[in-house]
Amino acid sequence: MKVIQDPRRKKDLRKLLQKLGLQDVSLVNWHLLDLALTHPSISPKDNYEQLEFVGDAVIRLSCAELLLETYPDLPVGDFAAIRSILVSDRFLAEIAEQYGLEMYLLASGGVRNDKWGKPSRLADCFEAVLGALYESTKDMSLIRPWLDPILQEKAIQVHADPARENYKDALQEWTQGKYKILPIYKVRQSESFVKENERFIAEVWLQDKLLGTGKGGTKKASQQAAAKQAYDSIMANELIKN
Amino acid sequence: MKVIQDPRRKKDLRKLLQKLGLQDVSLVNWHLLDLALTHPSISPKDNYEQLEFVGDAVIRLSCAELLLETYPDLPVGDFAAIRSILVSDRFLAEIAEQYGLEMYLLASGGVRNDKWGKPSRLADCFEAVLGALYESTKDMSLIRPWLDPILQEKAIQVHADPARENYKDALQEWTQGKYKILPIYKVRQSESFVKENERFIAEVWLQDKLLGTGKGGTKKASQQAAAKQAYDSIMANELIKN
Repeated sequence: MKVIQDPRRKKDLRKLLQKLGLQDVSLVNWHLLDLALTHPSISPKDNYEQLEFVGDAVIRLSCAELLLETYPDLPVGDFAAIRSILVSDRFLAEIAEQYGLEMYLLASGGVRNDKWGKPSRLADCFEAVLGALYESTKDMSLIRPWLDPILQEKAIQVHADPARENYKDALQEWTQGKYKILPIYKVRQSESFVKENERFIAEVWLQDKLLGTGKGGTKKASQQAAAKQAYDSIMANELIKN
Repeated sequence: MKVIQDPRRKKDLRKLLQKLGLQDVSLVNWHLLDLALTHPSISPKDNYEQLEFVGDAVIRLSCAELLLETYPDLPVGDFAAIRSILVSDRFLAEIAEQYGLEMYLLASGGVRNDKWGKPSRLADCFEAVLGALYESTKDMSLIRPWLDPILQEKAIQVHADPARENYKDALQEWTQGKYKILPIYKVRQSESFVKENERFIAEVWLQDKLLGTGKGGTKKASQQAAAKQAYDSIMANELIKN
């Protein structure tokens, strides 16, 4: 197993694990944790991307287990709706922010200064940290003890009031901040819809760019769906860097 | 823990686990395995839906781990492309078919006779079986030993020749079989695309129903993307039952 050469780096990472509340760090694979907090701008090969790919599945599985344990009688459609928020870049970046993950992320100066890219960067490396912890033990023992309470609090909020996840607001905040303009929504009724909740089709535009489309049973729901698609792809994509 | 009342059912399920090649079945939670192979038509409450929700994340995680171990140097974009095929309903239904999962699935007569719904039904209960096995031990020890070789074989095929996953063909096969008509593709050039691989936008229609849309760097790629969306949603949705 590769080891971390720099003792200061290992000390920093140990501090992060303490923040997460991990008591026993003897099982942690330090090399993987180091990778999970290394941006591709530092090394095109040895960076967080592969662990992020694992972590994306780890967070989905953690959420599935937690939701089943918390709400054993909820319809599966509600599970899926709540999970989509719990695993969103937006929420993962919030958790990462709480733990000050940016401080531990090795990245080039250019990347550090790209503040618009920060949410997606934070979400990515947070997933990678989950990937590294999962791969350390091949189970959730280093993850669920500290992550469950965070997921559970959010799950309860979302379940109580799904409307508070307002993607139109989030998108507007972003376009205002970045371009000083507001997105425009175009809604039409679908001529041929299979399901009642696909009656309306919304598009959201920023000047001449189509940012996203969405369907819904009401005009408002279709706009939210379009805003969600736009917001998610902005977070996920390189759009932020153009 | 709930137990299975019917000794014949337990014997059947034991046979299935033998087929999977599981030697030590002492860790298996039989109640969960029984649920995983119970269709909602038998019980609106005690059925495979919740375990399928867990299993969906389990298969993604298994694939992520396997791909990393098999191709440690592959770009992450390739991982994602291969995984999307490995976790597709289409491939999961194939695996389920190999193990004759349909034989073990408790379902109403109406469901059994719905042969168009079979692929999505098989994929669903296969995911649920993975969910049940994962929940039995809270790790992959009952899954990866038999599933890895299957995933690996497919991963190698897809990696060697990505074009063999032809969704246009698959969709055409389905519409022909079900409605005796062919889907129609409409392709236009995007007026404002952010990424080169989004230059073309394709829609695929079945008479007056929009089945799916997709983007791509070539007309053909956009059609494949639209066909994939259509095919996946047909497999996932109740469209098959309308």
